[in-house]
Amino acid sequence: MLITLLTDFGTADYFVGAMKGVVLSINPHASVLDITHEIPPHDIQAGAFTLLAVYREFPPGTIHVGVVDPGVGSSRRPVLVVAGDQFFVGPDNGLFSYIYERETSVRVFHLTSERYFRHPVSATFHGRDIFAPVAASLSNGVEPAELGEEISDFVRLARLAPQASGDGNLTASIIHIDRFGNCVTSITPQDLPEERIASGARLVINRKEIASFRRFYAEELPSANELFAVWGSAGFLEIVAYRASAARQLNAQVGQTVEVKGESQDTPDRGVKIGV
Amino acid sequence: MLITLLTDFGTADYFVGAMKGVVLSINPHASVLDITHEIPPHDIQAGAFTLLAVYREFPPGTIHVGVVDPGVGSSRRPVLVVAGDQFFVGPDNGLFSYIYERETSVRVFHLTSERYFRHPVSATFHGRDIFAPVAASLSNGVEPAELGEEISDFVRLARLAPQASGDGNLTASIIHIDRFGNCVTSITPQDLPEERIASGARLVINRKEIASFRRFYAEELPSANELFAVWGSAGFLEIVAYRASAARQLNAQVGQTVEVKGESQDTPDRGVKIGV
Amino acid sequence: MLITLLTDFGTADYFVGAMKGVVLSINPHASVLDITHEIPPHDIQAGAFTLLAVYREFPPGTIHVGVVDPGVGSSRRPVLVVAGDQFFVGPDNGLFSYIYERETSVRVFHLTSERYFRHPVSATFHGRDIFAPVAASLSNGVEPAELGEEISDFVRLARLAPQASGDGNLTASIIHIDRFGNCVTSITPQDLPEERIASGARLVINRKEIASFRRFYAEELPSANELFAVWGSAGFLEIVAYRASAARQLNAQVGQTVEVKGESQDTPDRGVKIGV
Repeated sequence: MLITLLTDFGTADYFVGAMKGVVLSINPHASVLDITHEIPPHDIQAGAFTLLAVYREFPPGTIHVGVVDPGVGSSRRPVLVVAGDQFFVGPDNGLFSYIYERETSVRVFHLTSERYFRHPVSATFHGRDIFAPVAASLSNGVEPAELGEEISDFVRLARLAPQASGDGNLTASIIHIDRFGNCVTSITPQDLPEERIASGARLVINRKEIASFRRFYAEELPSANELFAVWGSAGFLEIVAYRASAARQLNAQVGQTVEVKGESQDTPDRGVKIGV
Repeated sequence: MLITLLTDFGTADYFVGAMKGVVLSINPHASVLDITHEIPPHDIQAGAFTLLAVYREFPPGTIHVGVVDPGVGSSRRPVLVVAGDQFFVGPDNGLFSYIYERETSVRVFHLTSERYFRHPVSATFHGRDIFAPVAASLSNGVEPAELGEEISDFVRLARLAPQASGDGNLTASIIHIDRFGNCVTSITPQDLPEERIASGARLVINRKEIASFRRFYAEELPSANELFAVWGSAGFLEIVAYRASAARQLNAQVGQTVEVKGESQDTPDRGVKIGV
Repeated sequence: MLITLLTDFGTADYFVGAMKGVVLSINPHASVLDITHEIPPHDIQAGAFTLLAVYREFPPGTIHVGVVDPGVGSSRRPVLVVAGDQFFVGPDNGLFSYIYERETSVRVFHLTSERYFRHPVSATFHGRDIFAPVAASLSNGVEPAELGEEISDFVRLARLAPQASGDGNLTASIIHIDRFGNCVTSITPQDLPEERIASGARLVINRKEIASFRRFYAEELPSANELFAVWGSAGFLEIVAYRASAARQLNAQVGQTVEVKGESQDTPDRGVKIGV
């Protein structure tokens, strides 16, 4: 049985090793696999995005343990989420929000059966003391309903979807900046259909305009400084530069607004329009 | 069979991959699992602390390979440690000291049976050439006594335990600072029983006084700047701040002294006392 | 079946997790193992060096997925390499060059059988959409010839071997600098036989001369500032300092020239000659 780990613990401390040890002590046959431990500390939205980008690649029955948990030890609830054919274990603080958005079948259980916890339960490390052992027990065949009570008032972050403004424009945002400086926006193909790109849509961020849409990073390019948009591998429109950091050129931050404007005017500083 | 790796090799080089390849070439059925490779280069004490914080979470029979080895290639001995129901393989330089402190049953073997090494043995990478292959052979069922001769003069670091001063105070130290800036002290519940906290014990570090003891990070707080003490998940008292780095506020370093003073006086700049 | 991953993706993003999920969805019995994800972004040579340093430690049949792929989405070909008793899957951009140099039996297949890809194939993430699923299918028993057509014009980087100059000297280069600041040169024991070291060979880099050859890092040393040469664990001569960064002392960069000069003259600032 496959158990993945996603945390903001980094890899320098004992935290991740302890979680793996707990899982394997309870289910020696589990396969434990790291998604990432480099979610920025306490950044629930970043954890939620990464889970969204990755979970559908995993086989049915996979159990994802997500721990970005600034409220550890307080009254925030530990939960198990059964969504589609996969499982998620972690704090009820919005970390699984984008799974709730994507999946039609979602059940959330408040983890209350303390006999499945590691004892004593510390006040500061529920990844080791609650989430890892519950995931391991689940992988051993324990039923969700045995682990706690179903709830419906679980915490959700604001939806990712861009907002339409009256004039046909969209207000979206930067939801992730990756290692290469590519800026992932909240814009999906549903938000920006191909016709609209073909008829001259453009993106505006920090007063810079991006009107060049390309199919891949290494398409023929005038220079490394040109910014362009491309459908990224997580399913969202990304603003990128060839072998260069778009984020640095745009001085972009996660959370920042990106506007999608309608038909383009010919202005001298626009990028070359190539089309999808 | 479970084999864990803890090193100061980082993850950017070929070192860790080479160790995994060696293990799996000797025992294709081994499960190899990373604890961390981010021990600060050559910092034996940091490696010893992380092993201590994590090893008891692992199932009986787990083999931990620890490589923080500034003396590689010199006359420092390679050893196998059988402690409690677990195994440790690495250099005899103090890296396993805190395991020796915790476990009552400890046997240490000097690894001299070169037929279990990878040949040729390089002068600079015993992680690959001695420790990984010996761990793999052990996981294949080779007996400890076949791997080398038992020794009793193995290297130990200074004990972690705080020192009592005549006036009832304790002199402890910061033994680890984690990713979140939490400062782990060498103080255990044995050193500082609950009665003493209740009667007004306080910590002094860098002339700052911490007199607030809390049960968890997110307990109701006046501000993010308040420093408080909490029993951490590794079994030691930690000095922390809510969603902030206590280490930065205290300008604390690993190795630094923390004093535990007796009954508190009412001074205006003390934190709010809440009690455990 | 063992599948290793080497990329320049870092570990903070969803990229590595997605590749693991794809592999395990296609072959749930595969063991997926990280070599490193910290190859500097787009640095094909660095990826090629790390693969070279590590692949021979792995058991026969291991499948190595290498993704350092600045040309992703362009016309560069995806390939499968069958070399010796191991497999390599990734872009045809020189990443497997040093494997071609080392192995006598090399066959390269252009991956054209799209039925083994993940669909839709994104323009930007062939690690997930081509290389991971092809590796998983290979581990399931699919034959190389079924995955694509054999080619002979695959891309090769310049050879690693140092160049001889007329006067018997060699011009080599720094091919890697590791976490500890050790500088790996392109010099092998074939290039610099023991007799030549014994008769006074010395290295010159950035106008500094290194004439001290030692067997291991911790051999008796006058000071931490002394630079010396040692045969490193990847099979190349390294310039190192004891518990200090040789790279910092030399201001060395990867790609920089290192000259091997013949018999040494006695100059006052030479290191102590100890010999191998």
